[in-house]
Amino acid sequence: MKTLISLALCYDNTQLLVLNQQKLPHSEEWTLCDSPRDMYEMIRCLHVRGAPLIGVAAAVSLAQFSEQDVNAQEIMLAAELLKSARPTAVNLAHCIDRQMAAYTISRNKKDIVRIAEELFEEDARLCEKMANHGAALIHSGDSILTHCNTGGLVTTGIGTALGIVIKAHQQGKKVHVYVDETRPLLQGARLTTWELERNSIPYTLICDNMAAGLMRKGKIQRVFVGADRIASNGDFANKIGTYGVAVLAHHHKIPFYVAAPYTTFDPHCLNGDAIVVEERSASEVRGYRDGSGQYVSWSPEKASVYNPSFDVTPGELVTEFVFDHGRKPAYAIRGVLASVY
Amino acid sequence: MKTLISLALCYDNTQLLVLNQQKLPHSEEWTLCDSPRDMYEMIRCLHVRGAPLIGVAAAVSLAQFSEQDVNAQEIMLAAELLKSARPTAVNLAHCIDRQMAAYTISRNKKDIVRIAEELFEEDARLCEKMANHGAALIHSGDSILTHCNTGGLVTTGIGTALGIVIKAHQQGKKVHVYVDETRPLLQGARLTTWELERNSIPYTLICDNMAAGLMRKGKIQRVFVGADRIASNGDFANKIGTYGVAVLAHHHKIPFYVAAPYTTFDPHCLNGDAIVVEERSASEVRGYRDGSGQYVSWSPEKASVYNPSFDVTPGELVTEFVFDHGRKPAYAIRGVLASVY
Repeated sequence: MKTLISLALCYDNTQLLVLNQQKLPHSEEWTLCDSPRDMYEMIRCLHVRGAPLIGVAAAVSLAQFSEQDVNAQEIMLAAELLKSARPTAVNLAHCIDRQMAAYTISRNKKDIVRIAEELFEEDARLCEKMANHGAALIHSGDSILTHCNTGGLVTTGIGTALGIVIKAHQQGKKVHVYVDETRPLLQGARLTTWELERNSIPYTLICDNMAAGLMRKGKIQRVFVGADRIASNGDFANKIGTYGVAVLAHHHKIPFYVAAPYTTFDPHCLNGDAIVVEERSASEVRGYRDGSGQYVSWSPEKASVYNPSFDVTPGELVTEFVFDHGRKPAYAIRGVLASVY
Repeated sequence: MKTLISLALCYDNTQLLVLNQQKLPHSEEWTLCDSPRDMYEMIRCLHVRGAPLIGVAAAVSLAQFSEQDVNAQEIMLAAELLKSARPTAVNLAHCIDRQMAAYTISRNKKDIVRIAEELFEEDARLCEKMANHGAALIHSGDSILTHCNTGGLVTTGIGTALGIVIKAHQQGKKVHVYVDETRPLLQGARLTTWELERNSIPYTLICDNMAAGLMRKGKIQRVFVGADRIASNGDFANKIGTYGVAVLAHHHKIPFYVAAPYTTFDPHCLNGDAIVVEERSASEVRGYRDGSGQYVSWSPEKASVYNPSFDVTPGELVTEFVFDHGRKPAYAIRGVLASVY
């Protein structure tokens, strides 16, 4: 497989390295990933995260595996394992299925490698296209609210929603970003801030519950978020808290944009009710485990907890989707689907 | 001064003790408060917190001080110091002003003591009345969302918003409480959970950004919150995040109730724009300091932060106010004021 390098993923000379996102922003550590089993664990424990990156990273891991002395049965099992790492993001299944479809026909392991390379390079191109379409929506002087982390860390390119903001900044527009910290895992506080500092973009970190007050004061001109799965009616799943932001933006008449590559679409998913939402450990809500593994608890030891990773936002609350192939209002999403598939 | 005992405040035999709420829920430690200066520091660093309790605790501290060998000038300075501890909650000024008004007329230090005793006992009575008025709104089987902590820890009685829920439970109604963790200081995760466990009321702790999804699923029947200051037009300030919850409740057509004693009213405050909102340290958003003083940081060291303690909710979003003297819809609030003052 050729050398592949992005902000959080690096394949070079048979070695696959992953930036440990749990250690950010305090240290930048790369971890060797030796097998699909390793990658499965890294995706599950969020060393590798973000819908597009999960898909590409799993594909590269499967490609690395297929270049070893393994048979069709072993490849199939590895593919199934990787697909099962997280249920909500559709990109993971999309990437692995694309590799396995080609391999099933050709029985040539080189197809698995070729498609991993294609997926890696395609993801960066998709980001670039989304960024250009989306940046046109941003006016110089805008303050933008974003939720979770959707930049270079979760793609092989500039990012999805955050990529748009970075692109607008690169185009010379004056932007300010309000960063939702994004409890429970604080991807906004840890990762979006880190990316914005790398890009010299001014930002203000807030707790998730502070966005409403800022909107009321007229401090936010638009909202950009990513997506983990978009149903065929325009409903979409994204990081927990996104739905609340969408309702708040609607109430304050602030444009709410969702940026995603076509790989985030699930044409088989009729609407939001059909999206499986993963629930994670209670300990994530009861406290916080830092990058060094140290755990601080602030609630009663056995506090009963609800901890869904995602929520579902109805398409009606989306002003426009920003896809790689262009911008579409939510009502036009069936048309988008038809043009892609 | 007579012996005065509540969940978080204890005056007995010249000693004033305060439950250190920063150590909850993991340990219950009482701290000796020797002077108004001590009390000022305890209020500022949130050892003593919650609008009603701050007022009563400051009044008791001033009374304790006045029983020592101090002159009128020293009492006046102590009163001013205590009033300046936190700007948003009106109860603090209300309590101290009541003591100083009587003292200014009589020049008898016993009036300061007498009024502290009255305020302490009155607060518990006001809670009981609010709890009874509010509990009538709760149906058996309801799931209730609450924000921050508004129980026995912030009053000398059963509490304000949480007191209502506790009362409904005591009346034999089946209730379940969804507890917003309430970033940044996590009063929901630390204190409301602790109070609910003490009262054997079933609850589920959530991150603030999870409430919207629960509302969409029909899991929440009503919302109860407290208030730190209510303006004469029905706008009110409360813990940061309250405004967002109010908008979400409005969007989902879920009744949104605000519980407060009449001491939380500010007849001199025309509307929400006139309420001073305190901003606190950036470190509260950049990470978390636990009860033992240990600090965990999860954002870049110099992350730019916005950290208002409160937000302002317009009266239009309030279904009803639950006062000690009865329930009132927001539009009737001028009438309420007229009846109190």
